[in-house]
Amino acid sequence: MKSTIGKNITISLYGESHGESIGVVIDGLEAGIKLNLDAVQAQLDKRRAKGKISTQRHEEDLFHITSGFFNGCTTGTPLHIQIMNKEQHSRDYTPQLLRPSHADYTAYVKYHGCQDYRGGGHFSGRITAPLVAAGAIAQQILEKKGILIGTHIKQCMDIHDREFDDLNADLKALSAMDFAVLDNDAQSAMIKLIEAAAAQKDSVGGILETMILNVPAGIGEPYFHSIESNLSAYLFSVPAVKGVEFGMGFDFVNHYGSEANDAWLMSGDKIVSKTNNNGGINGGIANGMPILFRTVIKPTPSIFKPQQTVDYNEKKETILELKGRHDPAIFHRARVVVDAVTALCLLDLCVEAYGGKWMRD
Amino acid sequence: MKSTIGKNITISLYGESHGESIGVVIDGLEAGIKLNLDAVQAQLDKRRAKGKISTQRHEEDLFHITSGFFNGCTTGTPLHIQIMNKEQHSRDYTPQLLRPSHADYTAYVKYHGCQDYRGGGHFSGRITAPLVAAGAIAQQILEKKGILIGTHIKQCMDIHDREFDDLNADLKALSAMDFAVLDNDAQSAMIKLIEAAAAQKDSVGGILETMILNVPAGIGEPYFHSIESNLSAYLFSVPAVKGVEFGMGFDFVNHYGSEANDAWLMSGDKIVSKTNNNGGINGGIANGMPILFRTVIKPTPSIFKPQQTVDYNEKKETILELKGRHDPAIFHRARVVVDAVTALCLLDLCVEAYGGKWMRD
Amino acid sequence: MKSTIGKNITISLYGESHGESIGVVIDGLEAGIKLNLDAVQAQLDKRRAKGKISTQRHEEDLFHITSGFFNGCTTGTPLHIQIMNKEQHSRDYTPQLLRPSHADYTAYVKYHGCQDYRGGGHFSGRITAPLVAAGAIAQQILEKKGILIGTHIKQCMDIHDREFDDLNADLKALSAMDFAVLDNDAQSAMIKLIEAAAAQKDSVGGILETMILNVPAGIGEPYFHSIESNLSAYLFSVPAVKGVEFGMGFDFVNHYGSEANDAWLMSGDKIVSKTNNNGGINGGIANGMPILFRTVIKPTPSIFKPQQTVDYNEKKETILELKGRHDPAIFHRARVVVDAVTALCLLDLCVEAYGGKWMRD
Amino acid sequence: MKSTIGKNITISLYGESHGESIGVVIDGLEAGIKLNLDAVQAQLDKRRAKGKISTQRHEEDLFHITSGFFNGCTTGTPLHIQIMNKEQHSRDYTPQLLRPSHADYTAYVKYHGCQDYRGGGHFSGRITAPLVAAGAIAQQILEKKGILIGTHIKQCMDIHDREFDDLNADLKALSAMDFAVLDNDAQSAMIKLIEAAAAQKDSVGGILETMILNVPAGIGEPYFHSIESNLSAYLFSVPAVKGVEFGMGFDFVNHYGSEANDAWLMSGDKIVSKTNNNGGINGGIANGMPILFRTVIKPTPSIFKPQQTVDYNEKKETILELKGRHDPAIFHRARVVVDAVTALCLLDLCVEAYGGKWMRD
Repeated sequence: MKSTIGKNITISLYGESHGESIGVVIDGLEAGIKLNLDAVQAQLDKRRAKGKISTQRHEEDLFHITSGFFNGCTTGTPLHIQIMNKEQHSRDYTPQLLRPSHADYTAYVKYHGCQDYRGGGHFSGRITAPLVAAGAIAQQILEKKGILIGTHIKQCMDIHDREFDDLNADLKALSAMDFAVLDNDAQSAMIKLIEAAAAQKDSVGGILETMILNVPAGIGEPYFHSIESNLSAYLFSVPAVKGVEFGMGFDFVNHYGSEANDAWLMSGDKIVSKTNNNGGINGGIANGMPILFRTVIKPTPSIFKPQQTVDYNEKKETILELKGRHDPAIFHRARVVVDAVTALCLLDLCVEAYGGKWMRD
Repeated sequence: MKSTIGKNITISLYGESHGESIGVVIDGLEAGIKLNLDAVQAQLDKRRAKGKISTQRHEEDLFHITSGFFNGCTTGTPLHIQIMNKEQHSRDYTPQLLRPSHADYTAYVKYHGCQDYRGGGHFSGRITAPLVAAGAIAQQILEKKGILIGTHIKQCMDIHDREFDDLNADLKALSAMDFAVLDNDAQSAMIKLIEAAAAQKDSVGGILETMILNVPAGIGEPYFHSIESNLSAYLFSVPAVKGVEFGMGFDFVNHYGSEANDAWLMSGDKIVSKTNNNGGINGGIANGMPILFRTVIKPTPSIFKPQQTVDYNEKKETILELKGRHDPAIFHRARVVVDAVTALCLLDLCVEAYGGKWMRD
Repeated sequence: MKSTIGKNITISLYGESHGESIGVVIDGLEAGIKLNLDAVQAQLDKRRAKGKISTQRHEEDLFHITSGFFNGCTTGTPLHIQIMNKEQHSRDYTPQLLRPSHADYTAYVKYHGCQDYRGGGHFSGRITAPLVAAGAIAQQILEKKGILIGTHIKQCMDIHDREFDDLNADLKALSAMDFAVLDNDAQSAMIKLIEAAAAQKDSVGGILETMILNVPAGIGEPYFHSIESNLSAYLFSVPAVKGVEFGMGFDFVNHYGSEANDAWLMSGDKIVSKTNNNGGINGGIANGMPILFRTVIKPTPSIFKPQQTVDYNEKKETILELKGRHDPAIFHRARVVVDAVTALCLLDLCVEAYGGKWMRD
Repeated sequence: MKSTIGKNITISLYGESHGESIGVVIDGLEAGIKLNLDAVQAQLDKRRAKGKISTQRHEEDLFHITSGFFNGCTTGTPLHIQIMNKEQHSRDYTPQLLRPSHADYTAYVKYHGCQDYRGGGHFSGRITAPLVAAGAIAQQILEKKGILIGTHIKQCMDIHDREFDDLNADLKALSAMDFAVLDNDAQSAMIKLIEAAAAQKDSVGGILETMILNVPAGIGEPYFHSIESNLSAYLFSVPAVKGVEFGMGFDFVNHYGSEANDAWLMSGDKIVSKTNNNGGINGGIANGMPILFRTVIKPTPSIFKPQQTVDYNEKKETILELKGRHDPAIFHRARVVVDAVTALCLLDLCVEAYGGKWMRD
């Protein structure tokens, strides 16, 4: 169960950066769900590297469903999505030169030198492409239920996007963007910042903020399968994520209970909270308010500046100068992956609460 | 599998605040492990409420092993730990008056009014007592392997503890403390702060920082069962945790890749990193450096100040004035729970890598 | 997950024959299900040893729910059932004298001598008592949905019970019996046979046949979680079960496809099969016909005749003469356990198909 | 987790008979295991239809590893095996004419008409090809540890193969056979029987008997993950298996305990049993003796004789006359699948006991 997650909607991921193909098996989808394959491709396209702020490895990322889909609908049996690798560049690798803050060293130790090291192998961000395809399917199913997911880039260095405002309009706007920043000025400033970092052979990271609208109250479990527990397990699976916080998050430390508590109000005949400092979750369970969380994506570890490192075989210190194609930032692409795993996790929790037939009702 | 977690070391939790007993079944322990039951009780004692800064419900928390333990050793079959509830106060509950930021509302919706609402029922922090007992057993097993876990209170409002310094000495010091702050002045200041908040019928939260020493490189899996994924699932199971970050965490957003990357060095014949911004984890897998993470514990939602809320049955707004026994802060007690779940998660990951017999070798 | 089974309705079992208590945690029960505790006790009573054909260890088997049950209903959180051991006889054990066909030797090897060997420890049939209690709860829930389970003793040596005839009447009759044989003459003959075996210090086994009525078509999954796969995993968990067959079972080998195939017919507007050689299951999935299977229970390995064995410590051959209290047959008691695990498995599969709320609708 | 099985060695199966490809993801293989791909293909070839006694759909069944394999060795990350479908015949299907004893009706109900019905879709025996490839890998790993698996056709109608005799020689002989019968005369008689059945537009079934040599004592768990529980879950996943029995199996009903018990003896300094009526398993755990079990494979339900059935859409009785390509018997091909799932289950249990590194030691 190492590369498998999800109790009701289970995904099994496979692939390496320079292998023949990468893919995912999704299991647990109810039969008879009509899928919009163009919308799946659109998510993959959003994840693709584009422009100067991303790697120059430009994969088409055309996905292929080889089972579980018939006459335009899910069949109810496992759906297999496959993406062929095409743009692998054959070159001589020196995997023993450990790239700092990459998984090179840990892969060496764990797999005793038998890992597929080409392009980062199984640890490559490329492996998130099938996740995005699977997530796009989950997102379609949730959307039919009115459950909407959207992520914007909240911060990069000292540049901040504006707060969420008109929630539905903001989510709609985000879904059309390649570089998901709500404020236009912040958007251009961030792109400039990435370009400047790239020019300096360096990289930057960012904070993503995700909103989920219309999650029914009651979803999630106490303790080990709280929404926070399950979601964070998915989110930390996304390479480069190093922190996750819900609602007020780490800022809770600066507030008294009387400030932090979310008072209950009536809104018509619906119970709502006045504030949403708990990010839509109490006791691990959705309370019907928007679910709100933030993830931090660290700066891409692949930089062109010379770096101090070690030769694993020789056990000697040395200097590494990376060549090849690398992203000076990945948070704008990671945002698509965050949406995808959020959708997969949420669909799993909804099916836990309502059963598989809910997907189709 | 709602109340069950762990693949190799599995725990199943049960109980309610005012029920007859609370407990946990731990499965997967190798046979023949000698257990120090006094050390288990010592952890439970640290978690217990004491002094003015905690609730006045003073449970003895004497634990009881009813199976899986024979002649001073584990038997290899499931170990059941039970703690009897003794200090439940019978009183008239009005569960329909939803306590803000508690699980009252979500429990109502999820369990359609059939939840055991007395004292928060299954959602009570009291349920963490068996977790602490189970975690203390895991901690003993890890310690024999040289793996040490310790948590200090890093911050409460604007009071900060000092950084970790002499790691082994600091962890040793923390293990003896009831209120785990390394700096004496910061410790007294935080206690005063909690007392002051209590005097104002209010509560405060805190940030905990946890260090794990001597985790062997290679533990953890890529993607869904990364150390970050698994650990965060356990950590977010602890009531009131709303954020988890590893290494540099959210502060990664403020740094270039060239600043954030951890250069590799030789230290004798061992590969180490110059800095530890990744908190001992690359690609989800331990790199042999100390594992470092922080969790934020929100202010206790139970405060004595009047609060705006809703009567669930009447669907009418009203004012809630809590009575009874409540904690003005729980982060100092939560720290023991964080250590416990960290140990349970880590033991599970070690057994994944080395097999069950490793526990006994 | 060693002592845990079930995806949606999860049970975690613990205990030893001579430990302080035995029990089970059941997780996944929907909130608000009214339970008839007398009916649970009635099942435990049926499993209890009685008369000359069973062991003289007469435990009361009073069960105790310590959590997950409030105001006569399930709460939706884990339900813990506990049974105290009372009739353990302290005596000197010589566990190194391996009882043939018991788990003494395998426990020694697996747990390297640290197992609780008293009375068979965790391997004792006594551990099935909490399973029966858990199963009785599952059975109640299924019965409200019209799903009925019943098991009769089909065969003991050359004595055969009659075939199922009036299905509903037969199941009703069985539920009232201590020694579940539909034909009166066969019943007395089997009891005499057991008594005769006991008189000769020997033991006998039997074949049980189980019928489940009104399982909705569509329950079960292809391949790994077929009804046959899941049910057999539960059934082989019952100590002494050594074979499981569905429908025509091993007798399929004697028939041509044209004889064995179940033709489809219309019965009113319902599709039914003319015969039921497949035991109500096609492709792993219920087809709406009665589910029918048989299990074989081997003769109790504890016999009073002298037996050839080995002293584990001395590694020397020797003769074993058992003393104490033993069953000359257990199939009539195992039948209650078979009903229980069948109910637990089936409830799990129903919840998989319909979601947890189905339990309460 | 519907199409996923295995805790340590996890397989996720996908595909349909007439889809583009079928395949399996195997997860949990240790890094650095050299694989003999020819041996994998050899197992697939044994499973392939050949001669008059099998279907005339002759697929090449060339497998393809697209990830998890590098430089001739496993990488430690998920291994994906894919087999392209080539010999699908496009023709007009009338899936509403329910084939008796097939999964047509249950698939209709479960997937509400959205199943891929072509050639039986996901329920086709064809889906066992990737299982065989995965199992062949598991078998290689076990063989290096001295653990040998072999299955012969024990019985077809009234023709019986001889008993296992020289165990190692017999297993070796079986591994070279296409039609696995140890006795030459029985082999020819069975083949004639199948041909005769085919000539009469009918089909036959068979009983398979499997032997596993050198399983270390101590493998397996009490209760829910006993060898019998786990193995039977895998075995009943193989289409057409309707019964599983271990050791003396259903014949236990005919014996007294004193006859059925396996006395313990010393053989040199090793503890062995005089007889092996328990099939190498006590209390769910391997005792070091050969593991022995039998499975019954029902007659192929696809026969050319006219059969009474129902039109699902019209809800009307009708007569079905099958055309196309069908097997008059599948037990001789199923035997390869039984070996495969046995290997997968056993490898999983060994890794549970010894950890993943055992695979490579």
